[in-house]
Amino acid sequence: MTAPKQDRSRATRRRLLETAIRCLATHGWEASTVGLIATEAGLSRGAVQHHFPTREALIIAALEHMFADRAALLDALPDPSGTDPDRIHTVVAGLVEAIGGELFRAALQVWTVAAADPDLRSAVVPLERHFAREVHRRAVRLLRVDDTDPHMRGLIQATLDLARGLALADILTDDSRRRAHVVRTWSTHLALALPKP
Amino acid sequence: MTAPKQDRSRATRRRLLETAIRCLATHGWEASTVGLIATEAGLSRGAVQHHFPTREALIIAALEHMFADRAALLDALPDPSGTDPDRIHTVVAGLVEAIGGELFRAALQVWTVAAADPDLRSAVVPLERHFAREVHRRAVRLLRVDDTDPHMRGLIQATLDLARGLALADILTDDSRRRAHVVRTWSTHLALALPKP
Repeated sequence: MTAPKQDRSRATRRRLLETAIRCLATHGWEASTVGLIATEAGLSRGAVQHHFPTREALIIAALEHMFADRAALLDALPDPSGTDPDRIHTVVAGLVEAIGGELFRAALQVWTVAAADPDLRSAVVPLERHFAREVHRRAVRLLRVDDTDPHMRGLIQATLDLARGLALADILTDDSRRRAHVVRTWSTHLALALPKP
Repeated sequence: MTAPKQDRSRATRRRLLETAIRCLATHGWEASTVGLIATEAGLSRGAVQHHFPTREALIIAALEHMFADRAALLDALPDPSGTDPDRIHTVVAGLVEAIGGELFRAALQVWTVAAADPDLRSAVVPLERHFAREVHRRAVRLLRVDDTDPHMRGLIQATLDLARGLALADILTDDSRRRAHVVRTWSTHLALALPKP
């Protein structure tokens, strides 16, 4: 395969995966068939099935792709400087953003179906665990805490659980104003609890 | 209608609503048809449709019933005494329990479908708001905080968002050990933040 062809193929794959996430987030699990995703991505059903033999394979690949994207987003977060509470607020807001939004909406569709479908669950659990670990690792680095201290570890986990709770609260209505206040309050508290540099 | 007949009818209604929640939590939205719920409750489909003309009406009533049950559970929580951090821990653990578990699993199925279904969403949002307000009110009372203080209000909301995040983390795998640690860590921290009596 020549290089331009490879590039085209990679770009097509990316468009397909991002379309799958958008379809799941907007139309839900039931409606997000291979046919709908193909149409929305401007591809034939055959072209999609050439990349991914089943809907499950396509959706799992889409989640994997988006999880990697979000982890990269956290890596690109400028190691924030400035006064302590502001630095913590920037990091917590970044974590809340990385966990929430369209990716969360799409993932929630998959988790909810997986909750009652053992096959799908066994495909989703390792993926979800991997993403949770990757986000945790980045939170530890960005917040500059000692992860071997059980109390600090608990606070980081609580921060990520809070982020998931906030993402969930945004599913049915726009919760952005309330969320901003909760993130600010939490950050102020976390700043007090974290060891001073 | 004679009193025993009324009692029987009330007991049947309760059994039906609790079965609907169990079906949703165990089998998911798609599988939880009126037919399945009727069978599992030991009723005929006609008897169910006599109480509730549509599946949506049955499921909304089931959520309403369970939300009221959980609020009652919080009201029954003995106003805990003892040293401060232990009291806060009892309350936070009670809130996490009231928000999570089977009710959360069932509600998640409904929220997820409602996210892509405007009709269902408009039925679910007021119900969900009412429950959130009721739980918040009880949290304020149990934690004995001044809810007009925006910072305190933010901390209570963060605690409830954390509880939802923890409930979500339990959907695909048993997360009880990690959850106990997070609840303990957050309670210790919240106890420090709350005003001393």
